[in-house]
Amino acid sequence: MTLPGILLVFGSCGPSGPPATESANKAVSDPLPSWSDTATKKTIMAFVEKVTTASGPDFVTPEDRIATFDNDGTLWAEQPIIESLFAMHRLKTAAEKTPSLKSKQSFKAFLEDDKKYLGSLDHDELLNALLQLIMVAEANTSREEFQASAAEFMKTATYPKPAPMPVKKATYQPMIELLEYLRANGFETWLCSGGTTDFMRTISQEYYGIPTQQVMGTRFKQQYKEINGRLAIWRLPQIESINDKYEKPVNIALNVGKRPSFVAGNVRSGGDIGQLSYSQGRSGPSFQLLINHDDAGREFAYQEKDNASLNAAKAGNWTVVSMKNDWKQIFRTAP
Amino acid sequence: MTLPGILLVFGSCGPSGPPATESANKAVSDPLPSWSDTATKKTIMAFVEKVTTASGPDFVTPEDRIATFDNDGTLWAEQPIIESLFAMHRLKTAAEKTPSLKSKQSFKAFLEDDKKYLGSLDHDELLNALLQLIMVAEANTSREEFQASAAEFMKTATYPKPAPMPVKKATYQPMIELLEYLRANGFETWLCSGGTTDFMRTISQEYYGIPTQQVMGTRFKQQYKEINGRLAIWRLPQIESINDKYEKPVNIALNVGKRPSFVAGNVRSGGDIGQLSYSQGRSGPSFQLLINHDDAGREFAYQEKDNASLNAAKAGNWTVVSMKNDWKQIFRTAP
Repeated sequence: MTLPGILLVFGSCGPSGPPATESANKAVSDPLPSWSDTATKKTIMAFVEKVTTASGPDFVTPEDRIATFDNDGTLWAEQPIIESLFAMHRLKTAAEKTPSLKSKQSFKAFLEDDKKYLGSLDHDELLNALLQLIMVAEANTSREEFQASAAEFMKTATYPKPAPMPVKKATYQPMIELLEYLRANGFETWLCSGGTTDFMRTISQEYYGIPTQQVMGTRFKQQYKEINGRLAIWRLPQIESINDKYEKPVNIALNVGKRPSFVAGNVRSGGDIGQLSYSQGRSGPSFQLLINHDDAGREFAYQEKDNASLNAAKAGNWTVVSMKNDWKQIFRTAP
Repeated sequence: MTLPGILLVFGSCGPSGPPATESANKAVSDPLPSWSDTATKKTIMAFVEKVTTASGPDFVTPEDRIATFDNDGTLWAEQPIIESLFAMHRLKTAAEKTPSLKSKQSFKAFLEDDKKYLGSLDHDELLNALLQLIMVAEANTSREEFQASAAEFMKTATYPKPAPMPVKKATYQPMIELLEYLRANGFETWLCSGGTTDFMRTISQEYYGIPTQQVMGTRFKQQYKEINGRLAIWRLPQIESINDKYEKPVNIALNVGKRPSFVAGNVRSGGDIGQLSYSQGRSGPSFQLLINHDDAGREFAYQEKDNASLNAAKAGNWTVVSMKNDWKQIFRTAP
């Protein structure tokens, strides 16, 4: 088997597209046009080809084609973390009603964008401050109010760097193509992120083509209660699971019930080593993709202090993406 | 009528059945052949037709066609609860190694099938005894060992009543047809049961055509740990969520992220009122199906002490299935 049939179909039976030209045909025949023709792209495509070849020794049945993707730093930019922009927006509103919130040092720093203070925190301290922010800004409300507020915010939110742009544009074009390519080959694509589940659900379908039921994230404890005479789900100010590091495989087991055969994460804090390793432990073929942020010119260049993710990638023979060398295009061009 | 349906089936519908006749052709064109031509069947089909009519006012987009089904008493018989047969099997093995387990009164009663003691427990006491049984019998092991053990057990397990039969045959043929009918109309079908998630996942695809990632149940707290040199998921002896009553909508919100447009549950303990009500609270059309066990001849007849489910059905205008009148056939005839 060479090209997945479905891609050929798109080329020939699309709804009234532009007249076929040589370059249009070429784009149609290449499912990953924003990826440079490097070993990384070839390795991804060779894997997909072998696991979808029914007569081959590495065939993976459709029900085992589960792909999980981290979000921050893997599908969209994470400097700053987009959910923190939303949480700060809600904190500002909350602080207008309850000014005492400003007396907490980390909240004050968030509200005043105190780079010196925030920059002095290490990864775990920053994560802890963010979780406290999220708890104050995103709990004690119904799911429905919360999601409406997130959807409203995202409509006009701007991502600041490298140049201000709508947040939707801060998603990575090569990864959007990869999601589509995997789905065209029978994979079910999932989010598995440190961001909170119901925040990501407000954009997962529109940004990534991922329905709400395939989104896993950090989650609040919730309860069923009557709100304005109607039974609804209430978000309690208690985090039930921080979906980071070794909690990711636990939540994949909870939500999916099997080891994924494809996982993508990124270098920053070692947050994806857990799900990448879990995937590799499945019996049968699996693929581990780790994105390295090494493109200071077009996006950012950052490393992990202890280099844990790249070390794990080396030990596990995972595929490392160099954003600089493997991606022709960084940010979203898709609609 | 006392003859179990299963006996009739063996006579007429095996894989090498009789040649097609007029009545066989008619059966093919009817998606719910085991349902009698009563108002219940008509109401179900009218709902499915209206929500799939793109030009109509009640159209439900495919991404909102989420259907959740209780399992015990809704998709298979629950007297006794099938998971309790498995848990007792594991308890017996555990008690051989640790005889002190037999000193606990409820465990002793389970092991010796002490009907007098077990019959003296009310619903909550029995549920509590079952949860303690499950905790001892199903925790402190890896997911993979647990699921292999459950799959092995289910291969030869027998359901005792009304006559001994393989557990797979204790599933309800009309509900298997309903699951298929909904899927054929673009619904994603989910389990939402008080049974434990990973137990049901061992049979959900084979029995119901429901993949592991669409199974919600009572769940254990889990952790990621190294087991025999391999990273895997470990089941801790701690129940994280009892998926019953008002915890069901909470878990639907967690796993699906939206209100279902179709929910099916049954009369026994009020366990499904939560998910049925949650569904009814969605904006847009929804359907609530409640199965009443009123067929002492072919299955069982049992009621709720407080009649809460039937009262809720009346108040909410839910569709109540009379197994006696609405089902031509009770037990599975599908392969």
